Amino acid sequence: MNQLSERYLEDFAVGQTFGSGRLRIDGQRARAFAAEFDPQPFHLDEAAARRSIFGGMTASGWHTAAMTMRLMLDGEFRPAGGILGVGFDDLSWPRPVRPGDELRAKSEVLEVRPSKSRPDRGTIKVRTTTFNQNNEPVMIFTGNLLVPRRPMST
Amino acid sequence: MNQLSERYLEDFAVGQTFGSGRLRIDGQRARAFAAEFDPQPFHLDEAAARRSIFGGMTASGWHTAAMTMRLMLDGEFRPAGGILGVGFDDLSWPRPVRPGDELRAKSEVLEVRPSKSRPDRGTIKVRTTTFNQNNEPVMIFTGNLLVPRRPMST
Repeated sequence: MNQLSERYLEDFAVGQTFGSGRLRIDGQRARAFAAEFDPQPFHLDEAAARRSIFGGMTASGWHTAAMTMRLMLDGEFRPAGGILGVGFDDLSWPRPVRPGDELRAKSEVLEVRPSKSRPDRGTIKVRTTTFNQNNEPVMIFTGNLLVPRRPMST
Repeated sequence: MNQLSERYLEDFAVGQTFGSGRLRIDGQRARAFAAEFDPQPFHLDEAAARRSIFGGMTASGWHTAAMTMRLMLDGEFRPAGGILGVGFDDLSWPRPVRPGDELRAKSEVLEVRPSKSRPDRGTIKVRTTTFNQNNEPVMIFTGNLLVPRRPMST
């Protein structure tokens, strides 16, 4: 990790956006993920998926979420100390993710708040949208992250 | 799946609760999950984890989320047609999950709403809490799920 590009709380400002590279959802991996964590017919079986509300094979929403985390970690968004989520305000999957889809993520800072009780940290609120290769959003969530303040030089 | 135990929209009511079995977070699996999706030092390396805000190894919050999905699918909560999340209202990880922790999930129905535009379905709002072996909550989320209405007999 390039330390120079790490951002402390003071380096974040409302309206900043951060992009990512791209990751392809591999069909076999999507099926294996679903078999372990989300073994529902529309994630595992082609014929069952065609008959389902999705009309075809889809990746688990949790797989999309985990891939988005990886996109964020490898992308431009680099809070010092890592991406430490305390939770979300909301999350939606507006559109199914299909095997073969290529995902990317874009994060926008909505809020920057120093902690009242801990002078060494704060939280930022970030809306991350995951897009497929047609630039359609497949997941949108607003996360709250812990970010350290810049250590004072001594 | 036992078809008899599947619930349609009409079978859900505010205040119902559904339990689950238990799943243990295996240390090696937690590390492999993190290496693939959430490769941060505090999920991968014992020494780095000790120095981190967590004070020791932790599972990725996304791993906890995926395990919770599995607990729900194998548990008492059985909407007809599967667990079809359209999104959440909120999600929090109040406490880290450690390798070796044993998780269980409990879901409570908060709202049951027939669709205005689609007579064959509706949504339910469900708060799911994931507990560790000490009955401490490690994840809490409020999800919105699509549930089919009972088909009319012809």
